[in-house]
Amino acid sequence: MQGTTQPPSQPATAYAPTDRTVPTRSPHRASYDKELVHAILDEGYVCHLGFVRDGAPVVLPTLYGRVGERLYVHGSTGSRPLRAAGQADPGLPVCLTVTHVDALVLARSAFHHSINYRSVVVHGIARQVTDEQEKRQALDALVDHVVPGRAADSRPADKKELAATAVLRLDLEEVSAKVRTGGVNDEPEDLALPHWAGLVPLQRVYGTPVPDPALAPGTEVPGYLAAL
Amino acid sequence: MQGTTQPPSQPATAYAPTDRTVPTRSPHRASYDKELVHAILDEGYVCHLGFVRDGAPVVLPTLYGRVGERLYVHGSTGSRPLRAAGQADPGLPVCLTVTHVDALVLARSAFHHSINYRSVVVHGIARQVTDEQEKRQALDALVDHVVPGRAADSRPADKKELAATAVLRLDLEEVSAKVRTGGVNDEPEDLALPHWAGLVPLQRVYGTPVPDPALAPGTEVPGYLAAL
Repeated sequence: MQGTTQPPSQPATAYAPTDRTVPTRSPHRASYDKELVHAILDEGYVCHLGFVRDGAPVVLPTLYGRVGERLYVHGSTGSRPLRAAGQADPGLPVCLTVTHVDALVLARSAFHHSINYRSVVVHGIARQVTDEQEKRQALDALVDHVVPGRAADSRPADKKELAATAVLRLDLEEVSAKVRTGGVNDEPEDLALPHWAGLVPLQRVYGTPVPDPALAPGTEVPGYLAAL
Repeated sequence: MQGTTQPPSQPATAYAPTDRTVPTRSPHRASYDKELVHAILDEGYVCHLGFVRDGAPVVLPTLYGRVGERLYVHGSTGSRPLRAAGQADPGLPVCLTVTHVDALVLARSAFHHSINYRSVVVHGIARQVTDEQEKRQALDALVDHVVPGRAADSRPADKKELAATAVLRLDLEEVSAKVRTGGVNDEPEDLALPHWAGLVPLQRVYGTPVPDPALAPGTEVPGYLAAL
């Protein structure tokens, strides 16, 4: 709950809360702090992108990147959401959500079981990027989001690949983070129960890189992979 | 791509594809195999639940459980989606998505970067569970989804807690899985490039359980936690 322990929001350092970014539940877990939001976004690379198709919700996992106050997602120019964002004026209403699970919270009572997590929810209008320079910058950001430093160590998209890739931009304007930290919140009368209670920490761990069988002889594992 | 290598779908073992579960992109990665879908769902406990509010999409992370061909999510009776599902007739249209990332796929070309993943997307109508026995079974499933065996080793919800908890049911009917496995798909002319290429495996790893400071003396770490 880093965000809630900070001084009152300054215009420059926090997103302005809106009706849909103020939660009805656990409002003390919500934060609009830009630094916290950026940190949560930068720790992930898979988001869940929601949009409306024929009146019904659709939620798809997809890679994303961040450049300042802009998020980017990409896909084939033939994919449904990207086509929709290109055709629709003024763009495609989306909700983009990123979640990290930090620990399981096992309470003595079933009711108080929970998880420690950090999530960011972004509401807004996704628009197709048409400027070639912005598109290239967005694609670099997408690759670097997965492995920092990787974009510079790969062959950039050629004209044909660039034309086959649609990039959507979503500005960080209507944004909130939600964070649960800390321990078990059992009822006082449950504390003496014989059930184990506590936290089980969770981590994302990278394994040893597995080289492509066709790797050019002498190609070493790059330093930025060791940094993972 | 387990699903695509199996014999043609049998009614008993696969979900029937629909317009919205047949992807426009990478259809070879799609599967409707029930066993595969169940395995992906059972490996996770956080889903991303999408619904439509005031015409715009909303995507929230939430815990889920599975009992046979039914998924359950829960929340405060005051939360927005749960209130909506209770009031709306015939329920709340949702899209529930679960994603596991298995490896980063680093290609020589930026364009062919990818991830190996397994995801399940469920479309349907979420309805509030009103039957008390089904509600209790759903809450047990939610707890056991996070830690198998835990529901039996915790205090069940009392009447008040049960009344404060809303449970939504979503039947597994319109369902698809999408799986990317395997290695790097670079263009033949890129194979000699000096960039390292290959897979970086990813795993979810549990740390050492951290007991609640108020734990009753002599309470041991239960065996089902060691099994994680």
